[in-house]
Amino acid sequence: MAHKNRIGNLFSLTSFGESHGPAIGGVVDGMPAGVKIDMDQLRHEMARRRPGQGGITSSRNETDEVEILSGIMDGVTLGTPIGFVIRNRDQRPEDYEHLKDVYRPSHAEFTYQGKYGVCVYRGGGRASARETAARVVAGALAKQALLQLGITITAQPTAEVADIPQGDTAGGVVSCTIKGVMPGIGEPVFGKLSAQLAEAMMSIPAAKGFEIGLGFDFVNHYGSEVLDKWVMKDGKISTATNYSGGIQGGISNGNDICFNVVFKPVATLMQPVESIDSQGNSVTIEPHGRHDSCVMPRAVPVVGAMAAIVVLDNVLINRASRL
Amino acid sequence: MAHKNRIGNLFSLTSFGESHGPAIGGVVDGMPAGVKIDMDQLRHEMARRRPGQGGITSSRNETDEVEILSGIMDGVTLGTPIGFVIRNRDQRPEDYEHLKDVYRPSHAEFTYQGKYGVCVYRGGGRASARETAARVVAGALAKQALLQLGITITAQPTAEVADIPQGDTAGGVVSCTIKGVMPGIGEPVFGKLSAQLAEAMMSIPAAKGFEIGLGFDFVNHYGSEVLDKWVMKDGKISTATNYSGGIQGGISNGNDICFNVVFKPVATLMQPVESIDSQGNSVTIEPHGRHDSCVMPRAVPVVGAMAAIVVLDNVLINRASRL
Amino acid sequence: MAHKNRIGNLFSLTSFGESHGPAIGGVVDGMPAGVKIDMDQLRHEMARRRPGQGGITSSRNETDEVEILSGIMDGVTLGTPIGFVIRNRDQRPEDYEHLKDVYRPSHAEFTYQGKYGVCVYRGGGRASARETAARVVAGALAKQALLQLGITITAQPTAEVADIPQGDTAGGVVSCTIKGVMPGIGEPVFGKLSAQLAEAMMSIPAAKGFEIGLGFDFVNHYGSEVLDKWVMKDGKISTATNYSGGIQGGISNGNDICFNVVFKPVATLMQPVESIDSQGNSVTIEPHGRHDSCVMPRAVPVVGAMAAIVVLDNVLINRASRL
Amino acid sequence: MAHKNRIGNLFSLTSFGESHGPAIGGVVDGMPAGVKIDMDQLRHEMARRRPGQGGITSSRNETDEVEILSGIMDGVTLGTPIGFVIRNRDQRPEDYEHLKDVYRPSHAEFTYQGKYGVCVYRGGGRASARETAARVVAGALAKQALLQLGITITAQPTAEVADIPQGDTAGGVVSCTIKGVMPGIGEPVFGKLSAQLAEAMMSIPAAKGFEIGLGFDFVNHYGSEVLDKWVMKDGKISTATNYSGGIQGGISNGNDICFNVVFKPVATLMQPVESIDSQGNSVTIEPHGRHDSCVMPRAVPVVGAMAAIVVLDNVLINRASRL
Repeated sequence: MAHKNRIGNLFSLTSFGESHGPAIGGVVDGMPAGVKIDMDQLRHEMARRRPGQGGITSSRNETDEVEILSGIMDGVTLGTPIGFVIRNRDQRPEDYEHLKDVYRPSHAEFTYQGKYGVCVYRGGGRASARETAARVVAGALAKQALLQLGITITAQPTAEVADIPQGDTAGGVVSCTIKGVMPGIGEPVFGKLSAQLAEAMMSIPAAKGFEIGLGFDFVNHYGSEVLDKWVMKDGKISTATNYSGGIQGGISNGNDICFNVVFKPVATLMQPVESIDSQGNSVTIEPHGRHDSCVMPRAVPVVGAMAAIVVLDNVLINRASRL
Repeated sequence: MAHKNRIGNLFSLTSFGESHGPAIGGVVDGMPAGVKIDMDQLRHEMARRRPGQGGITSSRNETDEVEILSGIMDGVTLGTPIGFVIRNRDQRPEDYEHLKDVYRPSHAEFTYQGKYGVCVYRGGGRASARETAARVVAGALAKQALLQLGITITAQPTAEVADIPQGDTAGGVVSCTIKGVMPGIGEPVFGKLSAQLAEAMMSIPAAKGFEIGLGFDFVNHYGSEVLDKWVMKDGKISTATNYSGGIQGGISNGNDICFNVVFKPVATLMQPVESIDSQGNSVTIEPHGRHDSCVMPRAVPVVGAMAAIVVLDNVLINRASRL
Repeated sequence: MAHKNRIGNLFSLTSFGESHGPAIGGVVDGMPAGVKIDMDQLRHEMARRRPGQGGITSSRNETDEVEILSGIMDGVTLGTPIGFVIRNRDQRPEDYEHLKDVYRPSHAEFTYQGKYGVCVYRGGGRASARETAARVVAGALAKQALLQLGITITAQPTAEVADIPQGDTAGGVVSCTIKGVMPGIGEPVFGKLSAQLAEAMMSIPAAKGFEIGLGFDFVNHYGSEVLDKWVMKDGKISTATNYSGGIQGGISNGNDICFNVVFKPVATLMQPVESIDSQGNSVTIEPHGRHDSCVMPRAVPVVGAMAAIVVLDNVLINRASRL
Repeated sequence: MAHKNRIGNLFSLTSFGESHGPAIGGVVDGMPAGVKIDMDQLRHEMARRRPGQGGITSSRNETDEVEILSGIMDGVTLGTPIGFVIRNRDQRPEDYEHLKDVYRPSHAEFTYQGKYGVCVYRGGGRASARETAARVVAGALAKQALLQLGITITAQPTAEVADIPQGDTAGGVVSCTIKGVMPGIGEPVFGKLSAQLAEAMMSIPAAKGFEIGLGFDFVNHYGSEVLDKWVMKDGKISTATNYSGGIQGGISNGNDICFNVVFKPVATLMQPVESIDSQGNSVTIEPHGRHDSCVMPRAVPVVGAMAAIVVLDNVLINRASRL
């Protein structure tokens, strides 16, 4: 479940921060006590999200140094909330001064203005992909708890554009597999594990679609072709196939949970773009600043992080399902 | 936001009921006071969801008579919670006696057993699509409030299988358009309107994918091809195209909100199916009872209902966005 | 945690119903699966809450017959939500016709009017103590789960008025003791067990105060007089005294949890009362209908029920405190 | 509503931080956009909470410098979450080394140990009153929004101990009055404004009781003596008396909201105290460090802050009560 700037119930992340304010950060509430935290592993996850790693990502120098302020002592979680801050060291507000009062195509200035009556135009403000760094911190913590329960998460790009013309951008598809989830995780009806995963993934900037198992390809098959038949495998009940993607009736069946998330092309082009300003005057937006040409390298670790948040939350919730 | 058997925050539905118990029903909490309720319209929405209306749906006779128990007096909402009950009049538990201890392929008996240690095998229990009747009640109430705000919702099948072989089943795609949503609805970051719609849709039985705007087709386009450029239209700021599906940065932009939901084929075939029982013994499930061969006719009104619940909840939440 | 017409997180009650509508009821969500339910015990709890049992309670004939609609099969909980309905059989709306447009002193017509713009004047509507029947149902279910964990709850009147003059009313104090709660229940900071109990108790109609342990008497003692010293008792760490009422830092310490709730006198007198109507005209309200002269007999089982709801919810939440 | 380390729904505070870790802080989510923030006023509120201001408070030098990290730009709120951090500059962990494995009487080490299996013994850790600094930040922000709506909050000590013997401690009562709340604020049944205030106050460290209006004194009066009669005052409907404390049926009636909170004596004495350690061995705790002898000076601003959080949240929620 998500509400405003928080996601999760028993394990939750509440995040804050604009892209060009002094810092972003968050509070991870409900991290179980007694989990050993490998800070190097956390930093490694952060490094994977950082832009500027490949030809097609932004050259912005985000060091993304995470400062943990509470909830962990001597490398072990206390059960208390984990507050953390990531400084925005490489602010260049002057890069955005030319965007004052301009509504960029497929950006959020107009909708934020409609919502709040004010808009932080500098680099996307709260709508910037920079906020995803807080997700990766929470996800990295969740993954370390999940690992102790035998649950692992891998995400990778599965549809990507090879050649992006100079100054243009592209989207792509990230596929994620969650292994080791015991049967019984997820809540029936509104809290289906698949529904919660969909919400979490669709909350990532630029995400425009989610599918689990066969997903949209189900429309091309009759029921008799895509039943996941129950069989005995190694003395355990399992399914011979996994068209459902590891979830039935919203609840995990023990099989791998497999889903895809599609991302639209980055909306900031490195070429002149026609638009209007808040008074309705025509403007030409000239390319400025530092921007990814493809969201994929940054999106991959964020997908994994969000999956970890959802799964850990539900593993904890499930402990209440029986007396 | 959804949690267990509840969806929504300021406007919420908490539902209950097994398919073959005495009744299903729910509580709609947060319905604004002073809304005139047209009970005929509500019954009309219920009738559309009822199975047995076409060649490819179940012949089960669900009259789906809704009894409103509170929250409405003299046809006007009081602001207090609306409790309602729908009796299960056409119970035939003997139709399911042969399924005791059997795990049907792509059904939820195994996952419920894993979660709760008990399983109601009769007709799907809580996992049955029968629970969607409660969603349609809440959605019908929400739609009447939304109509007064100029917001309308239409859902229709857009990918459907023409000929389903005898005894087999099919899935399909439902497309939904929400018109009249003012700019500013939806919350940034985790509570994006698109994320909440995804969660709501993916909580519908048999839903396996969600996409908004161009959705998965975004992967086939460069950024320069799919920017939604801002233009002045009739003195108002709008977008010339609507690839984004009416939402930017998670917040409505005033344009139509357009999304698709894919449903897998009905998992109950009217032909013999191989499976196992809870002890791992092989069993052949012979066709019994009454079942839809395509989920689409029933799914369409449920998609519209869930959209109404999400949008009304967010319209109310948005009233707090400015002082 | 409470929100609108719902209380609890993992174990929650969402209730509905006006006093003189067709029925009241609710949904208990999160009842753990596998709990044997003794329906006679539940009916016994309901009978204790029923008015008309002593000289000082209302003579209204509320049979309070609970119909369970879901979530329990063959006397055992399924883990799915428990919907229930209690019909309002003894409606006499004509008893309240004279109150149309009248604001009774210390009643809620004016405040509901201010909130919703409409007001159900008949017998208090949603503000009537009749809604507490739903609390007793949920509490009775919670108690049966708690009993299996060795936790018991007793409530009793400890300050009561012996002689109430003819036509007048009185309030009183209910004391509650919860035995058997293991150390560690309750959440630090905002979710303190004492804070959650306070909220639950203060949500009961006519409750005006809550204190735990020594409560308001703490102001009459120096710290050195009221420290709860840790000692070894029967090989276990315990406190020699229990001034704190079983909770330290918001978390149970294993000792009895003891608190008091004060209720104001019933606001409906059986004598003429001066007031005004919604236009500000003076009116004399003549005694009508059926009303308790003391809230205490009905309040006692409600206090116990609310305690059970809070404790079970927190016992379940606590399962997530360690990995 | 409170849940773990968060309080509030549309306007909420999620806090973090141990007393002797690097920092405490929080996230205020749901602050309406467009509120001018007076940082001097915020600092003034913080200064009032700081210990070491009078003879009976701790001499610990907490400068309590608040760093706002997001959500406010050019002195105006953006509608996005307000992250903030307060560094713990005056850490002296060596002051607490002697408490390792010791359970102090009426402190939370034992209960935290029971809950989390680990315990931060240094200065109370998460259970320290230091966390209340985050409450005062959120309360100061809420008050500035409320002031624009004409709502003011004042808290003051009303029962206090004049002479505390050397090395001993005392508690006290804080009274709070909220002026200017329009009729209609608060939710019926579980979300009564009085219930939410009780929860918020009882979540303050050392709070042991809450009463509204006449509170526990109601037990000494008949109903006829304490009815709040409706009258016309200056052309508006109001009550002639205010025994109810401004709330009827859980909803504000426009009158002043008046309540009391009792605090137990500070549990840390500046004299030797007998206790046991985690192995059950007897220990004598010698006085160390810096501690308040009376909680009252620090509690007063915290009571006002919590009241502001609850009232602003409910004012916002109430905007959804009518269409």
